[in-house]
Amino acid sequence: MTLFINDYSEGCHERILEALTRTNREQTTGYGTDPYCEEARAILRREMNCPGADIRFLSGGTQTNLIAMTAAMRPHEAVIGAASCHIFTHETGAIEATGHKVLVIPDDEGKVRPAGILAMLEEHDMAPHMVKPRVVFISQSTEVGTIYTREELQALHEVCRAHDLLLYADGARLGVGLTAKGCDVTLADMAKYCDFFCIGGTKNGALFGEALVLVNPVLQPDFLYIVKQRGGLFAKGRLLGIQFAELFRDGLYYELARHANEEAMRIKAALTALGARFQVDSPTNQQFIYLTAAQADALRQRVTVDEQWRRDNTVAVRICTGWATRPEATDALIAALQQTLQ
Amino acid sequence: MTLFINDYSEGCHERILEALTRTNREQTTGYGTDPYCEEARAILRREMNCPGADIRFLSGGTQTNLIAMTAAMRPHEAVIGAASCHIFTHETGAIEATGHKVLVIPDDEGKVRPAGILAMLEEHDMAPHMVKPRVVFISQSTEVGTIYTREELQALHEVCRAHDLLLYADGARLGVGLTAKGCDVTLADMAKYCDFFCIGGTKNGALFGEALVLVNPVLQPDFLYIVKQRGGLFAKGRLLGIQFAELFRDGLYYELARHANEEAMRIKAALTALGARFQVDSPTNQQFIYLTAAQADALRQRVTVDEQWRRDNTVAVRICTGWATRPEATDALIAALQQTLQ
Amino acid sequence: MTLFINDYSEGCHERILEALTRTNREQTTGYGTDPYCEEARAILRREMNCPGADIRFLSGGTQTNLIAMTAAMRPHEAVIGAASCHIFTHETGAIEATGHKVLVIPDDEGKVRPAGILAMLEEHDMAPHMVKPRVVFISQSTEVGTIYTREELQALHEVCRAHDLLLYADGARLGVGLTAKGCDVTLADMAKYCDFFCIGGTKNGALFGEALVLVNPVLQPDFLYIVKQRGGLFAKGRLLGIQFAELFRDGLYYELARHANEEAMRIKAALTALGARFQVDSPTNQQFIYLTAAQADALRQRVTVDEQWRRDNTVAVRICTGWATRPEATDALIAALQQTLQ
Amino acid sequence: MTLFINDYSEGCHERILEALTRTNREQTTGYGTDPYCEEARAILRREMNCPGADIRFLSGGTQTNLIAMTAAMRPHEAVIGAASCHIFTHETGAIEATGHKVLVIPDDEGKVRPAGILAMLEEHDMAPHMVKPRVVFISQSTEVGTIYTREELQALHEVCRAHDLLLYADGARLGVGLTAKGCDVTLADMAKYCDFFCIGGTKNGALFGEALVLVNPVLQPDFLYIVKQRGGLFAKGRLLGIQFAELFRDGLYYELARHANEEAMRIKAALTALGARFQVDSPTNQQFIYLTAAQADALRQRVTVDEQWRRDNTVAVRICTGWATRPEATDALIAALQQTLQ
Repeated sequence: MTLFINDYSEGCHERILEALTRTNREQTTGYGTDPYCEEARAILRREMNCPGADIRFLSGGTQTNLIAMTAAMRPHEAVIGAASCHIFTHETGAIEATGHKVLVIPDDEGKVRPAGILAMLEEHDMAPHMVKPRVVFISQSTEVGTIYTREELQALHEVCRAHDLLLYADGARLGVGLTAKGCDVTLADMAKYCDFFCIGGTKNGALFGEALVLVNPVLQPDFLYIVKQRGGLFAKGRLLGIQFAELFRDGLYYELARHANEEAMRIKAALTALGARFQVDSPTNQQFIYLTAAQADALRQRVTVDEQWRRDNTVAVRICTGWATRPEATDALIAALQQTLQ
Repeated sequence: MTLFINDYSEGCHERILEALTRTNREQTTGYGTDPYCEEARAILRREMNCPGADIRFLSGGTQTNLIAMTAAMRPHEAVIGAASCHIFTHETGAIEATGHKVLVIPDDEGKVRPAGILAMLEEHDMAPHMVKPRVVFISQSTEVGTIYTREELQALHEVCRAHDLLLYADGARLGVGLTAKGCDVTLADMAKYCDFFCIGGTKNGALFGEALVLVNPVLQPDFLYIVKQRGGLFAKGRLLGIQFAELFRDGLYYELARHANEEAMRIKAALTALGARFQVDSPTNQQFIYLTAAQADALRQRVTVDEQWRRDNTVAVRICTGWATRPEATDALIAALQQTLQ
Repeated sequence: MTLFINDYSEGCHERILEALTRTNREQTTGYGTDPYCEEARAILRREMNCPGADIRFLSGGTQTNLIAMTAAMRPHEAVIGAASCHIFTHETGAIEATGHKVLVIPDDEGKVRPAGILAMLEEHDMAPHMVKPRVVFISQSTEVGTIYTREELQALHEVCRAHDLLLYADGARLGVGLTAKGCDVTLADMAKYCDFFCIGGTKNGALFGEALVLVNPVLQPDFLYIVKQRGGLFAKGRLLGIQFAELFRDGLYYELARHANEEAMRIKAALTALGARFQVDSPTNQQFIYLTAAQADALRQRVTVDEQWRRDNTVAVRICTGWATRPEATDALIAALQQTLQ
Repeated sequence: MTLFINDYSEGCHERILEALTRTNREQTTGYGTDPYCEEARAILRREMNCPGADIRFLSGGTQTNLIAMTAAMRPHEAVIGAASCHIFTHETGAIEATGHKVLVIPDDEGKVRPAGILAMLEEHDMAPHMVKPRVVFISQSTEVGTIYTREELQALHEVCRAHDLLLYADGARLGVGLTAKGCDVTLADMAKYCDFFCIGGTKNGALFGEALVLVNPVLQPDFLYIVKQRGGLFAKGRLLGIQFAELFRDGLYYELARHANEEAMRIKAALTALGARFQVDSPTNQQFIYLTAAQADALRQRVTVDEQWRRDNTVAVRICTGWATRPEATDALIAALQQTLQ
């Protein structure tokens, strides 16, 4: 039975494995000082039109977020995010464990808005009795699959500049975000508007790995110390460089993300035709719907999706495609939905 | 101009100063090992009918809360409180700085309720991706001046027992709580229903100091190491023992709290007669009202109260009496309110 | 020019890549809940004769050590190690960053001895003013290439039992330790005498990965929360399970380690014949010598070794073989040493 | 039996109690914003000839040190001290609990020397695998009673400037340091050569309290947030301001310290005449000697001193006078020493 529960159920795109195999017995120095990491950094800097970016390759998302936050804040500083953001809900208090409070704002689309930031600043003006907001944390795409447009990013950038805040984007699902229909944001825009952000490999074709991009020079000094201290400095750093070079050398990253989105849009169209009740309007690889308990139970007999919660007769369900989703599996899922929801 | 902005604007009750003066040149050993701390502990244990309680004297409220939370939780554990609770709003992220998330529940009366705890547990059942609730944090009296009845305490106690949670009460304002009209809770009840709690001296007649009571034996081993490590082990611990012995030897603590409440009730009666709009119905020394901007500005010419926030034409105001509030000052405040609000 | 600077200069044994390729498009659930992790755990539990062991697969050594220490200690507790131990010297204060002090004992062979532990306990008996030792940290093999015998492990085990200490072994180089000439310790002995330990994959044939073994049940509850919180919970956990299953299914792990040791012993014999001055007598893949500055400069023209430090005319050099060291490269190194040192 | 075990066995100088009594019922605002704190800051700034100094009053020594270190360092930075320094030996790992490693250098006189700093920097040049030294921690007077001369302070200042290090002086016993015979350092010198330091009240006539002086502007921004977060922001801050104003208004602080030193010098002279074996040559209120077990046992019958450790037949003893030591008690101690050691 095919899994539609997340976008990391498979290994990686075969070109990654081929590249790893091809380079396997070469000797290189460790910790990201090798030529493959250099190549990947050069490719990414060019693509994001940002020659001064410091780029570090890390192995997982929670690790990336906690290292980024650790390096960016003094002890009394805090990060502002949406109430649904990953660091607030699904990282076991990793940010608090580094000593920092996460201040959240409810939002149906999982976004942080300039007005929310301003209100949060106003609520925290009672120095020194309250934490001092320092970072704004967004996700592109968000936890509920929505995307920030260029205009929205620019507006966040401006409010951050005006109030001495740093803008961070969690790009664990950056691929599907940038390639979504209606998204006018490029990698270069990410680098233009964010002080730092990450590019997720794990959920988009890599075996594993995230690229953390430090655009703002204030974030760069001594950064690698923090990486090492928090257990994020990969001995065989080249494994990450090889992967990111492969993903970005000729657009494979975007191609894979586009595929995930296309399969999701097919599912979304089918759901719309079925009159399904959506939790949110998502243009990316995650689709969120409500089912009745009976529908959910019936669906479960035929396909595996992600049941988020169940209360009374309502079941919240997430359907997630990925870079590796087979079209026939999508066909089967759609058939199952049709039989279940009709 | 008299201050009604808090309950720690003066020094201490004169009996405290006299006791400090009387014992001043005596030599004792340090860190709470002296006979005065022993005496204070004995008095308190008797009063709370809890011979097994471990009692530690600390110098301030934030310190007390952060030490209690540090000792009680493993790194992945979290504390549940009301959205208005002091550790969430006014301690500069002290709990997060020790590594722990504070999970909050909005409540108009500033209370944590059993249903809220159960909902929070349900929301956090996705181990290991979410923090694990371990402590329930309440305040007696609360941040908005309300009190928990014995029945409410018992209900919290039971839900905590049933779900392996520890119940902590911040008693920075325990005196006014226990002596409020309508409060049927005694110090012995606090010890019966809470796993740990503190008895605030700073806001009720002491020069400074809080007594942290560890009722549940699971909290006692090695506790003093944590006190020392977080900078809370007072060299001249006797200063704290002397104060608490004096406050509890013959009921001075309650007498002072009753006075604060009585002055507050006079103000409350006057406000009620004036048709004032209360934020909440508080039976203790803090009264919370809404004024118009014009009223607040007029009042400010005659007396100093605590302006919490001001939006559009609404000003939220806290009026706070204390153990040292002079009746004539209360009279003057009431007169000012009458002239302003009529 | 061949690198003899460490044991992680290459990728991995080809069987690992083959297994990853073979399973690549399979779908599994995440976070180590997949069948490959189960298989690897079953193989390891059988091999270590310890059915109750909790085994977690992590991605790197510093991460493994910091997660293990975080989970094992309360805030006031400390870890005892040799002055040369990795957590004290080369992990950027990762253990201190989790809040714990590392207490160290100088030792020429990089070992912790029972007498040293007892002395450390005696020095720290001034509760609550000093940290409380809780974990004894050893490495097998050690940072200077030496090994603990079974008798030594048993003695440490006993002193730890007697003083309520937990014994942890960093096995980043466990393979070369267990297969060294003169080592009578098996994986089952590790599980018998240690409360917890790790089995390093990164330096012995894996692409990356460490297996953390929790033998003592006191360490097991809620452990995975800590893994997640510190960024160590691999989304595609199966990547680690696949590797460890492959390494331990039929002894590949030991075979690779034996090769590394054999190449090192050839180098050691050559050095001995040349009258080289050894820093320490190491039976494993790391050989430590002193050279003159002239010798070091000459050697550097022909081969790349790890120059540790240089003072006056003395250069401390580490020569490190690995599972992938080609015999011809070793021949060339020996020839270079002969030309340089004679 | 008089205690000579430390310098905080009594309360405070009577002028402190009188000032507290005189001001007791006055109302002031909290957290150090009151006129008494302002006055104390003005007096101290004038005395140290440093109008730009930010001065914060805290309640205890461990608290002061941990707040100072927390504010001064980023997560990967470390502090260098003497092996005997208080933060390394007697603060229960408080600095490590804030995340920072304490790097120590053995020294018979308890001092940090420029050469030791340079060696430590050289040992830690392997970025990013090692912590980065950032603060040099000294004590004036030191843990073993010795003092830094102006020349020594200046040399430390210069090596710190040259290597981007911050110089911190723990002045828990600053009074006896500055007034010791042979000490040419003034409070103004402390401010000139240190980036930050504290002035201890607890051990020199105050009821309690330390003044933390931030000279270097780089340390000043947002400092009070850290104070609050770590539980060090005293609600009734004025209690501290009143005490420091009293101690420094007309030289009471120095007068009390001189007394402690004089009594200690009488004891030292007697010990010298008796041929006692000193651990170190201390010009301040702490005298350190070795006794035989028989001598220590005999002495203990007559007077209470601080037995540090006992091994074989040797007992290390600290004799500590204070601002409150009665001359007759010193006479009795000297008589006891004469009877015991002769």
